Amino acid sequence: MTTNKIKVSIIGSTGYVGAELVRGFINHPYAEIIHLTSQTFAGKKFSDVYPVYRGVCDITLSDADPVQVAKDSDLVITALPHGVSSKTVPVLLDNGARVIDHSGDFRYKDLATYEKSYKLTHPHPELLAKAVYGLPEFYRDELKDAKLVANPGCYPTCSLIALAPFLTKGLIKADSIIIDAVSGVSGAGRKSDLAYAFCETDEAFKPYGAVGHRHTTEIAEQCKFLSLKSGDANVVRSVTFTPHLAPFKRGMLATVYAKPTELFAGVDSDKINEVYQEFYNNETFVRVLGNSTLPDVKSVYGSNYIDVNGLYDAETDTIKLFSVQDNLGKGAALQAIQAANCMFGFDEDTGLKNMVRGV
Amino acid sequence: MTTNKIKVSIIGSTGYVGAELVRGFINHPYAEIIHLTSQTFAGKKFSDVYPVYRGVCDITLSDADPVQVAKDSDLVITALPHGVSSKTVPVLLDNGARVIDHSGDFRYKDLATYEKSYKLTHPHPELLAKAVYGLPEFYRDELKDAKLVANPGCYPTCSLIALAPFLTKGLIKADSIIIDAVSGVSGAGRKSDLAYAFCETDEAFKPYGAVGHRHTTEIAEQCKFLSLKSGDANVVRSVTFTPHLAPFKRGMLATVYAKPTELFAGVDSDKINEVYQEFYNNETFVRVLGNSTLPDVKSVYGSNYIDVNGLYDAETDTIKLFSVQDNLGKGAALQAIQAANCMFGFDEDTGLKNMVRGV
Amino acid sequence: MTTNKIKVSIIGSTGYVGAELVRGFINHPYAEIIHLTSQTFAGKKFSDVYPVYRGVCDITLSDADPVQVAKDSDLVITALPHGVSSKTVPVLLDNGARVIDHSGDFRYKDLATYEKSYKLTHPHPELLAKAVYGLPEFYRDELKDAKLVANPGCYPTCSLIALAPFLTKGLIKADSIIIDAVSGVSGAGRKSDLAYAFCETDEAFKPYGAVGHRHTTEIAEQCKFLSLKSGDANVVRSVTFTPHLAPFKRGMLATVYAKPTELFAGVDSDKINEVYQEFYNNETFVRVLGNSTLPDVKSVYGSNYIDVNGLYDAETDTIKLFSVQDNLGKGAALQAIQAANCMFGFDEDTGLKNMVRGV
Amino acid sequence: MTTNKIKVSIIGSTGYVGAELVRGFINHPYAEIIHLTSQTFAGKKFSDVYPVYRGVCDITLSDADPVQVAKDSDLVITALPHGVSSKTVPVLLDNGARVIDHSGDFRYKDLATYEKSYKLTHPHPELLAKAVYGLPEFYRDELKDAKLVANPGCYPTCSLIALAPFLTKGLIKADSIIIDAVSGVSGAGRKSDLAYAFCETDEAFKPYGAVGHRHTTEIAEQCKFLSLKSGDANVVRSVTFTPHLAPFKRGMLATVYAKPTELFAGVDSDKINEVYQEFYNNETFVRVLGNSTLPDVKSVYGSNYIDVNGLYDAETDTIKLFSVQDNLGKGAALQAIQAANCMFGFDEDTGLKNMVRGV
Repeated sequence: MTTNKIKVSIIGSTGYVGAELVRGFINHPYAEIIHLTSQTFAGKKFSDVYPVYRGVCDITLSDADPVQVAKDSDLVITALPHGVSSKTVPVLLDNGARVIDHSGDFRYKDLATYEKSYKLTHPHPELLAKAVYGLPEFYRDELKDAKLVANPGCYPTCSLIALAPFLTKGLIKADSIIIDAVSGVSGAGRKSDLAYAFCETDEAFKPYGAVGHRHTTEIAEQCKFLSLKSGDANVVRSVTFTPHLAPFKRGMLATVYAKPTELFAGVDSDKINEVYQEFYNNETFVRVLGNSTLPDVKSVYGSNYIDVNGLYDAETDTIKLFSVQDNLGKGAALQAIQAANCMFGFDEDTGLKNMVRGV
Repeated sequence: MTTNKIKVSIIGSTGYVGAELVRGFINHPYAEIIHLTSQTFAGKKFSDVYPVYRGVCDITLSDADPVQVAKDSDLVITALPHGVSSKTVPVLLDNGARVIDHSGDFRYKDLATYEKSYKLTHPHPELLAKAVYGLPEFYRDELKDAKLVANPGCYPTCSLIALAPFLTKGLIKADSIIIDAVSGVSGAGRKSDLAYAFCETDEAFKPYGAVGHRHTTEIAEQCKFLSLKSGDANVVRSVTFTPHLAPFKRGMLATVYAKPTELFAGVDSDKINEVYQEFYNNETFVRVLGNSTLPDVKSVYGSNYIDVNGLYDAETDTIKLFSVQDNLGKGAALQAIQAANCMFGFDEDTGLKNMVRGV
Repeated sequence: MTTNKIKVSIIGSTGYVGAELVRGFINHPYAEIIHLTSQTFAGKKFSDVYPVYRGVCDITLSDADPVQVAKDSDLVITALPHGVSSKTVPVLLDNGARVIDHSGDFRYKDLATYEKSYKLTHPHPELLAKAVYGLPEFYRDELKDAKLVANPGCYPTCSLIALAPFLTKGLIKADSIIIDAVSGVSGAGRKSDLAYAFCETDEAFKPYGAVGHRHTTEIAEQCKFLSLKSGDANVVRSVTFTPHLAPFKRGMLATVYAKPTELFAGVDSDKINEVYQEFYNNETFVRVLGNSTLPDVKSVYGSNYIDVNGLYDAETDTIKLFSVQDNLGKGAALQAIQAANCMFGFDEDTGLKNMVRGV
Repeated sequence: MTTNKIKVSIIGSTGYVGAELVRGFINHPYAEIIHLTSQTFAGKKFSDVYPVYRGVCDITLSDADPVQVAKDSDLVITALPHGVSSKTVPVLLDNGARVIDHSGDFRYKDLATYEKSYKLTHPHPELLAKAVYGLPEFYRDELKDAKLVANPGCYPTCSLIALAPFLTKGLIKADSIIIDAVSGVSGAGRKSDLAYAFCETDEAFKPYGAVGHRHTTEIAEQCKFLSLKSGDANVVRSVTFTPHLAPFKRGMLATVYAKPTELFAGVDSDKINEVYQEFYNNETFVRVLGNSTLPDVKSVYGSNYIDVNGLYDAETDTIKLFSVQDNLGKGAALQAIQAANCMFGFDEDTGLKNMVRGV
């Protein structure tokens, strides 16, 4: 571990993910914020946009160009739309910064899947192979020396943490995976949009993007990699995924359905729990609940934790897996800080461990 | 149609279902409330318990015994716990009232399934065959002369309306049904319970009763009956069902996953919509949304409507069906009034059609 | 009473007030909707904008000009911005329609106060004297023959109903009135605005427009008229008023502070309640709660009721008055229907009495 | 400053205030939790009661008696009901611990006022003179050596911070103070009570305890002390206070009305702001907003900050002051930690400064 502070900049710092990155880094003992950029609010203070930060983070928002930002920083975190990141990130890398990107532009290994999912031509496909998928629980070794980290999507993180133990051990059938998921409203970002107005969202609940949501292919590709660890016989090619919008600000739940393979003969709820306990035994941020307890999004609010558990439905021979996270926490900004800790050799829970709230 | 007012009494009138029954009947042109009973609040006015009803329904709550209530009423609606209904309802029937019961005690045709699901011995199993399952869209002919109506559970109504067209036509595989559902907090009833306190429920979301919820077998039995209409080859024996608790007061959504049969070769989202359109063409309260629109619980708030639509996910050959209702409306009290309209020969939408709210 | 249906049109029908007017009129036995106009959504169905109305109100939104709308209608209700109403309403009147307007343009008798409050020059000041302030509890006689009714602001209605008995009897000091009020988010209207986004409004609470809110002068002018009924010695010239925004969709509370005059020597909480009971004895929609009960906005949700009560604080010789209403109900659209009932000779509670909801 | 960790115990640790104390102390670099006691949950882990703390605070809850707790601890924080604290705290003091108490039992200097307000006979009135009122902004010198600190009530903290600059300088009339305040639901504590159930509290808003709320006399006594600093001519004897319950979990706003004295001739909004700026210039946790900005409870969520600002209403010669805090933060647990920092010689913002959240 080093105690020299790393210089961190955030490009696109005034969205909800950007603000959560600021919250994380001001509580981080080994990081110092250099640039917070914003096209819309350049010249204002960060605390003018988020009054909650008055006296806490009064940095002036800048419109510094990526070259300068990169030169001034050890780590640049980009919270930009897809299609924009793919053009900005190479500039940052060329100017010496290490980068964690929050868009979908570097999350895929398969170019065709990316281009089909995002309906874009990638200007730098050569970077896909170099980018590390920023899920520390699966890729922490690769993160150590990564120049470019693709922070996973919120739904993929929640789904993959739930599925990983069973995929890597070949315990569920590759073609049986259904993910029914729910997100809080902050997942839609900080914007003026009638669809996310209080009077349209409160006391409401609905599915959206119910076929073809971009995170579907991201989940499927990572499921494929996980399932390959159990051999070639049971490889995931696709998953069924349905997101829903719920009337809370932060939080995400995935309820996952899958069929056991023959390797998992005799499965019951206890055995599902044991698989989780064993697989995540050494993980700080994945909390395997006790046998009878199911996760609640409120228990991970504002944190980097992700709580999981599962049950077996003998009537229909179905495994049910449940995972909850904060969509802005483990689902976005705080996971990026966890990845940064891996990249710069800090303890992985630095600045993150105690970030919870009881009420 | 008759214009003589029917005499209606409600046993257990101060829970949320009871209160919603009151709301429905005071807006019903052909019904008159006779008794509102309450063990806890007898002697008080209904509007003392629900101040919103001051000047609107100031009936004094009574502790009249079932014999008297039955003798004074054409229709008695019971909003009692299971195990209590099974003892009270026979008394009501013996004393000449027609009855709509809200518990699980008369919803099953198969005694063993009831007794296993509710862990009770039924004191009057002979009534199971006589009870009509109060889903007017499927059983309106039987409702006309019914003495005893078992009002369906909220989750079963929501699930069965979504599934019925596909089951009766044999378009989905009987063993592939997964129902992922969400309820508002009023589904837990009106009670002092920390689990449903504002600070424990707001900004929260969680699964509960995720294996073995009683509504699972109720859904399965009715699915069986519906599937038998398409022949003996594809009969539903069980379903996978997972309820969740969401931070809104009223409302329910079911997201249903199923695999198409060969009869549904060439399925796409348009064809799913067509099946719905055709099946529910003449139904006032089942609203089939346009092709691209998915249901939102807010659109059925306070009403007897249930909105449905479906999509086909070609990647995984999966049919997704969506239905939303108000758990206290179509999911409970207002559906009981719809059933009462069938029982007494009123137009089925009497008093219910315009009960909606835009904001 | 007449049973011929009146022909009603709504100009600006797709805002929240417009939608609530639709809800009211489709439940009104003696009204028929002719035109629903919308600049933004002309050509679409009303139920395309508010899916909750599918099958309930599928009228096509029109861009008919005011002349045509007036000629086709007995009553036109305008839900337009101030400054627009003052130009449109005269056209409607000239073409034979009676009008209820929801803007501030015709609420004042004093032109200078209007022009100062709204920073506008009134194009038709001659109409101010002719317009009737649409608070039926105070002006129902004038409403009978009114051609133009200015529907009161939401805060003024809530404040004036709380204050009226005490002002008209000279029981409170004219210069001591402080109104601390709270509105639900729907008061801001249906629009894309970050300030009213779910993530900005949920779990939030704040004052706004805390000095100079336009409703201040509207309240003051009406308080003046009410206070003049008790003589010239204690006339209200101004009031202190502070609105707040609260995280609920519909509802409004006014907490009013005032000092008793010598006429109210010996005041206590019982006497305050008696004043209310006596003054509102014959009013259907003003509900005076029992001595110990304070109003809650939830009790008037979706209704035209306004609940009031008051207490005396002997420690500081202060009278506290409380009133709650639905800001879209008694505070806007449903009060307009109450006024329309007065205008057209229907029972004042026609279509409104049972419009309540318990949960 | 010392870097030896102080030993802290919390008696009554599983209520919302207790849980917030835990959150604060696990993030405190110089404190170590020794005992967390609970009568209800002794033997369970703290994280069994609050699953959010799994892996973060898994301390086993104890039923250790106060003698033992005191002997093991440098600081004991009691979160007990009034009437219980007055008996427990002396035991703790006698056994060598310094104590911060959260009840009303030690907040008053005047015994009669306490006994009248709480309807109790105080068993240890001699302690009232020794107890320090734990508002560091006013009493930080006294806190340094305090053995017993009475943590202020939530409403008093919010009200007094708003009023202090004007009282101490004699700028507002002593008999003109009206405090209209709003609390989130967590203020009612963690308990099973229908009144605070989600379905009763969501989409609701109401006054409560509108005359005679206990915090009224606590506010008045402290206002008296503050006003005495400006001389004997304008001493506060009583205040008008009205609390309301709002549908959010955490947060509190006070809107305060007062009349300027002659000393404040020429008052305008800018001058009010200047008084605040000057008075709180060196305070970390009192944030004086810019001239045009009014406080929002969301900006202090989860923090120890309290935001203030004021306006002058020239029409009625009224000063309006606004303050917001988190009722569990600056209004309870986090303020206790601020006081503890004073008591033990740490920087006053230790462990508290960065505890904010943007979304």
